[in-house]
Amino acid sequence: MFKVRVYVNYKASILDPQAAVIEGAIKRLDEEGVSDIRVGKVFDFFIQAQSKEEAKEKVDYISDNLLANPNMETYDFTVTEVN
Amino acid sequence: MFKVRVYVNYKASILDPQAAVIEGAIKRLDEEGVSDIRVGKVFDFFIQAQSKEEAKEKVDYISDNLLANPNMETYDFTVTEVN
Repeated sequence: MFKVRVYVNYKASILDPQAAVIEGAIKRLDEEGVSDIRVGKVFDFFIQAQSKEEAKEKVDYISDNLLANPNMETYDFTVTEVN
Repeated sequence: MFKVRVYVNYKASILDPQAAVIEGAIKRLDEEGVSDIRVGKVFDFFIQAQSKEEAKEKVDYISDNLLANPNMETYDFTVTEVN
């Protein structure tokens, strides 16, 4: 059993309106000095596999086909063995 | 300058329909053995502060008032000093 965390973020070249809104809202909270906001999604789950390599292959397949939109988003993930 | 990553997740007691949909979609991709999906948001940004404690206080305030809905969501964050 492996614990998986997948991060999905917009590609750097894609305009992120949600991040722009949050940056404005933070300024209205009177908090200064916040910059370069990126908003992403995170998926936590467990996966059964025979080996860490097999787990990574499965997670890559799931991320590419379901969790991320490869046209606009990039993803990376961590896989940790648990008992 | 500090690099901040804030995770926002639904509380465990809150039904997460997006996670249920993803679990079904993964089964339709013919990937077996995936369980306990949680979907969250992740905010990456930089913040200016005099000390790590001040940075943490600011991030806590921003998370509580803006990034998370404390009624339904929990958050945690990491703060790392960068130059």
